[in-house]
Amino acid sequence: MQHDRPPTVTSLGAAVMARLAALARISADPDGLTRLYLTPAHAQATRQVAAWMEEAGMEVRLDAAATVVGRYEAATPGAPTLFLGSHIDTVRNAGHYDGNLGVVTAIAAVQVLHRLGERLPFAVEVLAFGDEEGVRFPVTLTGSRALAGLVRPDFQEARDRDGVSLAQALRDFGCDPDGVPGLARDPATVLGYLEVHIEQGPVLEEADLPVGIVTAIAGASRLVVTVEGRAGHAGTVPMALRHDALAAAAEMVLAIEAEAKATPDLVATVGQIEVPRGAVNVIPALTRFSLDLRSPSDAVRRAALARLRAAFDAIAARRGVGLSAQGSYDEPAAACAPGLMDAVEGGIRRLGLTPLRLPSGAGHDGLALAGLCPIGMIFVRCAGGLSHSPAESVTEADIDAATRLLVDVLRHLRPETCRP
Amino acid sequence: MQHDRPPTVTSLGAAVMARLAALARISADPDGLTRLYLTPAHAQATRQVAAWMEEAGMEVRLDAAATVVGRYEAATPGAPTLFLGSHIDTVRNAGHYDGNLGVVTAIAAVQVLHRLGERLPFAVEVLAFGDEEGVRFPVTLTGSRALAGLVRPDFQEARDRDGVSLAQALRDFGCDPDGVPGLARDPATVLGYLEVHIEQGPVLEEADLPVGIVTAIAGASRLVVTVEGRAGHAGTVPMALRHDALAAAAEMVLAIEAEAKATPDLVATVGQIEVPRGAVNVIPALTRFSLDLRSPSDAVRRAALARLRAAFDAIAARRGVGLSAQGSYDEPAAACAPGLMDAVEGGIRRLGLTPLRLPSGAGHDGLALAGLCPIGMIFVRCAGGLSHSPAESVTEADIDAATRLLVDVLRHLRPETCRP
Repeated sequence: MQHDRPPTVTSLGAAVMARLAALARISADPDGLTRLYLTPAHAQATRQVAAWMEEAGMEVRLDAAATVVGRYEAATPGAPTLFLGSHIDTVRNAGHYDGNLGVVTAIAAVQVLHRLGERLPFAVEVLAFGDEEGVRFPVTLTGSRALAGLVRPDFQEARDRDGVSLAQALRDFGCDPDGVPGLARDPATVLGYLEVHIEQGPVLEEADLPVGIVTAIAGASRLVVTVEGRAGHAGTVPMALRHDALAAAAEMVLAIEAEAKATPDLVATVGQIEVPRGAVNVIPALTRFSLDLRSPSDAVRRAALARLRAAFDAIAARRGVGLSAQGSYDEPAAACAPGLMDAVEGGIRRLGLTPLRLPSGAGHDGLALAGLCPIGMIFVRCAGGLSHSPAESVTEADIDAATRLLVDVLRHLRPETCRP
Repeated sequence: MQHDRPPTVTSLGAAVMARLAALARISADPDGLTRLYLTPAHAQATRQVAAWMEEAGMEVRLDAAATVVGRYEAATPGAPTLFLGSHIDTVRNAGHYDGNLGVVTAIAAVQVLHRLGERLPFAVEVLAFGDEEGVRFPVTLTGSRALAGLVRPDFQEARDRDGVSLAQALRDFGCDPDGVPGLARDPATVLGYLEVHIEQGPVLEEADLPVGIVTAIAGASRLVVTVEGRAGHAGTVPMALRHDALAAAAEMVLAIEAEAKATPDLVATVGQIEVPRGAVNVIPALTRFSLDLRSPSDAVRRAALARLRAAFDAIAARRGVGLSAQGSYDEPAAACAPGLMDAVEGGIRRLGLTPLRLPSGAGHDGLALAGLCPIGMIFVRCAGGLSHSPAESVTEADIDAATRLLVDVLRHLRPETCRP
């Protein structure tokens, strides 16, 4: 019996790492990794992933939304299905790990079961989604939204910057866009969704831990704030008579930072600012900046946003400047299921590691799948918290730990404890 | 005798206003006023100004730097010369008053003397400079610097954006560039320079006064400040682990504002800011902003700059961000001569007005002429402090007051009280 002899530390980590390197060579760009939804590089990646799934004992198909689905049957027919996976599309000039890590570790975990001849009390489907980054089309999470029955009615009309519709791109890929709405699963048949993903932040690195338990995928609000002051000559208008749009905006930027620092479970970022037609010797008449506000708690995020709007109003009133704050985006948070979090925590303890729970500030396919089933995520430490960059880096040892954790969680998961 | 019957209020103001309107029609742009140095519009303006100077009894010539010089002889030969005037070049899409007002009022004042047959104990030269705004070439104050012997050796090589050299443009204009250095005047022959100009700020309007006495033309420091932080995902990096370049810059912007508010005789402006390649969901790695710092006192300006540099260093150190602050410009202040300020104050009192002394935050030809002779300036109220805009506005009554003031100052000025 090989049950009590799991593969060695190095073999699993090294195998996953080698596959990630092979997958990273499938790119539209010879000098870096760029793999957009429904492009030739994506098609090649689906074939590679499908081959690995088959090698791992899975029955494989490409669904109508171009998700590669590899199914590993349960010990008994009619058992519910646990989804594993992540995405194989990337941003432009991406790293090797974002998305791909979750697909390759999931395949590796199933492969361990397959080699050992183990069947679980639930089926496993490894999903390799194709549209998580949302780079090519003005839609995102198409594959996971389809499974959750959340694809928008007009999704076929979305067009890339060359004018190609999503419907046409799906057809060219060999998929039937009209079949996408039919991909919606019956919630009764789905146990949950568990995704391994790099953290994309520095928390695990700071805590010196290879893996962590995700508590929720943060909800996000995005605003564009416009401050209207009064232009004036930089040399001639006394300070007391100014209505400087940029000075007001600077005060708002610091108010945002202070709010986020003072509020647990909240991050807030001003990533863009501009003084349109600004000149070195002209008092800014106009300043525009972006605000991105995230929290795993929608209540926290909304309360913070309300306090910030009040702070902006007070700053604008005191300085005699005009203000408009337009929301451009509002996505609720998706909480991870306590049962799945506990299952992951159990695995982490069995590996002899300290369980650390942390929210995901970035969005993931779980945001959509939360509409269908319980979700859970395992974060893996990445160097410097870097992602969406060729400098993205994860160690073989950490990948090994994550893969062994996933195998362990699969082996210990009981369907009845998974449901919230 | 008409000496005791100065022209009525309406006649002088209305006459100057009519000439300003006529001059404003001489433009490169049919829909607005644009009159750059050594362009056809400038040439046409020099001819119009020369005609008015001749009508006012002056002997007129165009000097090698394209300054129109109208000379009104003194009562006795060999007397020193008082310069009056301003500039007839404009920014693009300019107002009617910046520069032109000082030339037209000076001509009108001499015309009053001429009509009355009055000669003064000094000669008057009305100067219509052509390069005060510095818009066309990367040089400025060419006409006044020439008189002060301050033209840089390589001035002929300055090129406009079409590649035309200043030397070529002067030759095309009918001027000899090689004659420019020879324009330098002997300080012993020059009594001073007195310029009428719109305030370009709101101080006189706030004080409800038509005219004011300029104490100094502010010196200026300009810096480009670059803050280098650490990029990161807006959703995943906790606030405590961030090194946000924009948040640091915002703190600096407010430190600048606070420094200027707390320091008498100082104004400071951040007119430009950018987060290069910034994105709504990325923590700013880089922020760059401009700083323009002005004071009539060089000591005040330099001390403030030193305090700000220390404040920037402290902010950068506390936040763990990099900092570089590059000076791009440093121009010392030019103090107005007490004798000329007192002479203007006497005139203001004789008009029954309250004398108000205020610095000029903007640069003027006096900055260069201060290297040659005592300088003085009379500011005229302008609506909303607006300048460099078609919305620039001055009332006929205020122009009338300024012109009558200039006539009065000329009549009362004694050469011996003018020198510092």
